[in-house]
Amino acid sequence: MDELIADLQKLIRQPSVSAKNEGIEECASLVKKMLQKIGIKSELLRLKKGVAPIVFGEIKSKQNPCKTLLFYNHYDVQPAEPFDLWDDPPFSGKRKGNKIFGRGATDDKGELITRIKAVEASLKTTGDVPCNIKFLIEGEEETGSAHIEQYLKKFKKKFSCDGVIWEFGYVDAKNRPIVGLGMKGLLFVELSVKESIRDAHSSLAVVVKNPAWRLIQAVNTLRNDDGKILIKDWYKEVTPLSKKDLQLIKNEPFDEKSFQKEFGITSFVGNKKGIEAKKALVAGATCNIAGFVSGYTGEGAKTVLPGEALVKIDFRLVPKMDPQKQVMRLKKHLKSKGFSDIKIKVFHGEAAARTNSSEPFVQNVKEAADKSYGKSILNVSNAGTGPMFPFVEILKAPCISIGSTYMFSRIHSPNEFARVDLLKKTTKCICLIMENFGKS
Amino acid sequence: MDELIADLQKLIRQPSVSAKNEGIEECASLVKKMLQKIGIKSELLRLKKGVAPIVFGEIKSKQNPCKTLLFYNHYDVQPAEPFDLWDDPPFSGKRKGNKIFGRGATDDKGELITRIKAVEASLKTTGDVPCNIKFLIEGEEETGSAHIEQYLKKFKKKFSCDGVIWEFGYVDAKNRPIVGLGMKGLLFVELSVKESIRDAHSSLAVVVKNPAWRLIQAVNTLRNDDGKILIKDWYKEVTPLSKKDLQLIKNEPFDEKSFQKEFGITSFVGNKKGIEAKKALVAGATCNIAGFVSGYTGEGAKTVLPGEALVKIDFRLVPKMDPQKQVMRLKKHLKSKGFSDIKIKVFHGEAAARTNSSEPFVQNVKEAADKSYGKSILNVSNAGTGPMFPFVEILKAPCISIGSTYMFSRIHSPNEFARVDLLKKTTKCICLIMENFGKS
Repeated sequence: MDELIADLQKLIRQPSVSAKNEGIEECASLVKKMLQKIGIKSELLRLKKGVAPIVFGEIKSKQNPCKTLLFYNHYDVQPAEPFDLWDDPPFSGKRKGNKIFGRGATDDKGELITRIKAVEASLKTTGDVPCNIKFLIEGEEETGSAHIEQYLKKFKKKFSCDGVIWEFGYVDAKNRPIVGLGMKGLLFVELSVKESIRDAHSSLAVVVKNPAWRLIQAVNTLRNDDGKILIKDWYKEVTPLSKKDLQLIKNEPFDEKSFQKEFGITSFVGNKKGIEAKKALVAGATCNIAGFVSGYTGEGAKTVLPGEALVKIDFRLVPKMDPQKQVMRLKKHLKSKGFSDIKIKVFHGEAAARTNSSEPFVQNVKEAADKSYGKSILNVSNAGTGPMFPFVEILKAPCISIGSTYMFSRIHSPNEFARVDLLKKTTKCICLIMENFGKS
Repeated sequence: MDELIADLQKLIRQPSVSAKNEGIEECASLVKKMLQKIGIKSELLRLKKGVAPIVFGEIKSKQNPCKTLLFYNHYDVQPAEPFDLWDDPPFSGKRKGNKIFGRGATDDKGELITRIKAVEASLKTTGDVPCNIKFLIEGEEETGSAHIEQYLKKFKKKFSCDGVIWEFGYVDAKNRPIVGLGMKGLLFVELSVKESIRDAHSSLAVVVKNPAWRLIQAVNTLRNDDGKILIKDWYKEVTPLSKKDLQLIKNEPFDEKSFQKEFGITSFVGNKKGIEAKKALVAGATCNIAGFVSGYTGEGAKTVLPGEALVKIDFRLVPKMDPQKQVMRLKKHLKSKGFSDIKIKVFHGEAAARTNSSEPFVQNVKEAADKSYGKSILNVSNAGTGPMFPFVEILKAPCISIGSTYMFSRIHSPNEFARVDLLKKTTKCICLIMENFGKS
């Protein structure tokens, strides 16, 4: 465990913010060297200049060379802003008792290290791995995995496998691991309005138009107070949850009170409660303002009339929602509401995906999780997004998410941390998954 | 003129951003020394710790010790953000041909230097000044002159005078100076919403509320598309423009096309044209979004659900609107619309003021302006704000604005500049005003 923690700190201390192209190459090299150090053949795969490389690692099994397990992870992290809300510098990797703090501590450097250390443990104790192991570690996950599909197509043979362990898995407030079978999709856009070519003195607001007003009006047409998206045909292709899915959702525990306490809130969007909140997490679409900026946002007062206003919006998509189709619907919506002057920039879109719960691999992972952490929970789909869709489509392999991500470990937020106890349990779980997989 | 320019550059190079308390004391000392250097007795007046000092300067006239003219100016400047839109560093004071660039180049360091140099010219050529001269140079104008009323009350005797030359005066697109008789009031507030105690991963937007949505909804109730403020009784005490005021407004030239070209726009708020646009500039109230911020506002994508959202709004007030009363109305409005959770922080409020156009001082200034720049224009009220109200109330002296502020000199915006030709004309005009005043 000491080595695991030291290596995790090493990874955290190498910033790798894909949104800013900060430290990407450096972090890829660091990860490659870590794999090589424990005896895994590894290389950097590339598509073209300007695209973050994939770290690919491979080790064959002597005892069972016919089955291949692939670990999908990412070495990039979210931006650390707002910096002033961190208790320690975001890239310091400081340990305080059972917690290791830092951007990427859990998402996804913490998860990655458990996969690496599980393979290392197997090699050190048995001189072999129970099945062939492949590592696919990308560097653009936090900006939407823009090139994962191209990579999967180009290196399809290299990545071929019989099962994928997803880059993360949640552990809930009661320390129960979630065995996740699906991910939502994501459409991230930026809407902007320019009214004049420069900022003006705000006394001119009697005559010069303010783009913030216009953007506010436009954005206000996108959804209602209950979170329902008001764009025409937004939900058109969505199919209702099956009875089996609904049963799995019902079986899932959800501690509303703990969840609300973590965020200091007393109610949910649309006043959802119980099964409704759980259904929303598994199968609800969203329209979320991830950022809004116009004019002077510093301390104090500044009487300015801004020339430009900008909003960043992320839509979570559920199965059957096609990102490209949804962009067209958004454009049509703004036009029909009289906002054709608003510019739309699409950052990325990816579709949702789910793995069928009857796959044998599901039982394998569930058993390993039950043994390592105690009782695990089957989850139809995570509330978050990952590029599972192209994996399912191109590699034709079942994808399952399991890992060390404590539900309240503040991923994507200030003071993100990893829990040492969960890193240990996850490493053990990955060892068992490999063993089960080799025997199956 | 070379000395004037060098001294102006010296002033620009000393940042003095009151909103950030940056360089305030340093700039006050610099101004004090400049006054002393030309033979004006000067001192820093103080209220209490944490309040920017006033630079007070005084010189008696030997030829006419019975009449006193007071120059009101300010040594503080607006914040220079956004820095990246400046062609040269904002505090460099770079000269390019007829322009001197920098934050404060015009507002108000350029204006201040013309007053100082006019007095210096008089002293150097005649050994005397045509009337007693006082300088009142404050350091909080750009944050709303929060303490000017207290200063005026405390040092009422020191400041006593028979006329005030305001801190600036506009020169229009055709180089005609505006003799301004009034200023609008200002109410600057910050509205903020907190939904949860920390930012969350945006996948949780299915259940966790987003404060940006709430703030957008609230702000959207404040005004309509034509700029009319929808807060109950907002205009209740406002009296219509008198026939005489209307005539003065009609006489004022206004080059719509040049104005629109400067901002790259083709129409005005509410599609106002001609006399309607002119009336709005003189007597229109506004509700302007000076800043809006929530979530991630940097480059690229970040899937975050912000915990907080904040908007900065400035309301321009017209005569009879009481800032305190308007704050109460805003609070009542938000409450009545169901937004009592929105926090209101009032940065400052000041009432509008106008000087009667029949005052003899008005004719004095107009004549000086006609001689120095060519034909001048009488203006009932400026679109901007200054603390004219307490001057009129406490000093009981007529206040007139005249100066070197070219209409498109980008005050409060990037690439603010002063025009050298106008600095020269204004210095001459101030000399003539002093002479006329001494004779009157």
